[in-house]
Amino acid sequence: MHLAPCESKFSMKQNYKLIIEYDGTNYHGWQRQARDRSIQGAIEAALKIMTKEDVVLNGSGRTDAGVHALGQVANFRCALKLAPHAFRAGLNSLLDNDIVIRGCELADEQFHARYDVKTKTYRYNILNRTLPQAIGRQYAWHIRKPLDLETMRQASASLVGSHDFKAFEGSGSPRSHTTRNVTRVGWLQKNSDLLWFEIEADGFLRFMVRNLVGTCVDVGLGKKSVKDFLTILESRDRTQAGATAPPHGLSLLSVKY
Amino acid sequence: MHLAPCESKFSMKQNYKLIIEYDGTNYHGWQRQARDRSIQGAIEAALKIMTKEDVVLNGSGRTDAGVHALGQVANFRCALKLAPHAFRAGLNSLLDNDIVIRGCELADEQFHARYDVKTKTYRYNILNRTLPQAIGRQYAWHIRKPLDLETMRQASASLVGSHDFKAFEGSGSPRSHTTRNVTRVGWLQKNSDLLWFEIEADGFLRFMVRNLVGTCVDVGLGKKSVKDFLTILESRDRTQAGATAPPHGLSLLSVKY
Repeated sequence: MHLAPCESKFSMKQNYKLIIEYDGTNYHGWQRQARDRSIQGAIEAALKIMTKEDVVLNGSGRTDAGVHALGQVANFRCALKLAPHAFRAGLNSLLDNDIVIRGCELADEQFHARYDVKTKTYRYNILNRTLPQAIGRQYAWHIRKPLDLETMRQASASLVGSHDFKAFEGSGSPRSHTTRNVTRVGWLQKNSDLLWFEIEADGFLRFMVRNLVGTCVDVGLGKKSVKDFLTILESRDRTQAGATAPPHGLSLLSVKY
Repeated sequence: MHLAPCESKFSMKQNYKLIIEYDGTNYHGWQRQARDRSIQGAIEAALKIMTKEDVVLNGSGRTDAGVHALGQVANFRCALKLAPHAFRAGLNSLLDNDIVIRGCELADEQFHARYDVKTKTYRYNILNRTLPQAIGRQYAWHIRKPLDLETMRQASASLVGSHDFKAFEGSGSPRSHTTRNVTRVGWLQKNSDLLWFEIEADGFLRFMVRNLVGTCVDVGLGKKSVKDFLTILESRDRTQAGATAPPHGLSLLSVKY
């Protein structure tokens, strides 16, 4: 069989996997944009400087403007055969200090950071006390009124398993398939003021975590009951759920393959 | 005795004490400046809006550009007799979210936040690992090479008590009196990556904490010995000490009266 030049060239490329931490405060989200700063765009620009190639970076999924990551995963293919640690060091020296390449490794030729995802885990931070904070304000949603953690736990426990999460999908971004399988979920009292919502699933709809958090907070404030929460989940109706929690409390913790 | 109008007016003023947290990243330090943003300037501007008076805010001391505070203390006098909690709420609603008034209370008429200081405590954060961090990078000095905590502890232990700290004073800011009394000092391993240097004293020379940290780090890296550190302290010679640690690792934790 005769290989066309482009296929031949493709097969010579190496596939690299990156683990990426970023502070999303000053970015318009993961996805490359024509004008605005994005995480994908910043890393692709740094890869272009290193490789002189137009490298496409496949993220495990988008994160919205202002959302952070401790363990976003992405892959890219390029002809330049650089050692993974050299890519990591080179990218870190080129990138602004709000993006850090935590790891770089060679991946299987077929590996794709989005298609191959098994589960992703997100964390949402809430600062629950009267006073706001200056130090670290970029990373937690401040809620003044006391939250009832016990009812929030009861509500979120109902999320485990396979459910149609249409009621928690952001408007204007419909997916044909809105059922996701939640493998782990919980509210943790990190310290006297700080609450963590953590959720692991095989996938997430747009704004799903932030809509779940917003609706759980309504339960914690007594605006909705645990039974209301279950009714909303079953309704598949976005208009019944609570407000979308702000982006800066959310971080993509890790992605499993 | 006849009171002049200004004295009479002064005696009618109330003296308020503030506890202030701030993220110094976007400020040119505590002290009011003609053009640049300062913490003092921002709070005085907010006080002017609330009181319609030209209020002078006395801080416990300056913090340099980029230095943070969790418990800076300041006092101000004004004729407007507002409840302390109303000042706190009003200021917090007027200030940007990188400054938070944590507390406001009525103070003795004579209380002065700078003259009456008994001790101040500073903390310096060091991230000691190969990789930098994106989340929280604003609050810790990143040092890649491993630090030997034991020798840093031995060096810093020699600081307790009354010493002439002239060797650790920033150049271009001489004080007539450079002896300070250190009541508590230590290096803490906060977690596997994070080190805290904490120091309490009756006062600090300009850049003193950052120069002490820079010189301790030289000890931790093996560039200087514990004996060198003691020699530098005794030398009273700035040129012998290590480099000044960067400002963003430093926070004023608390002030005692």
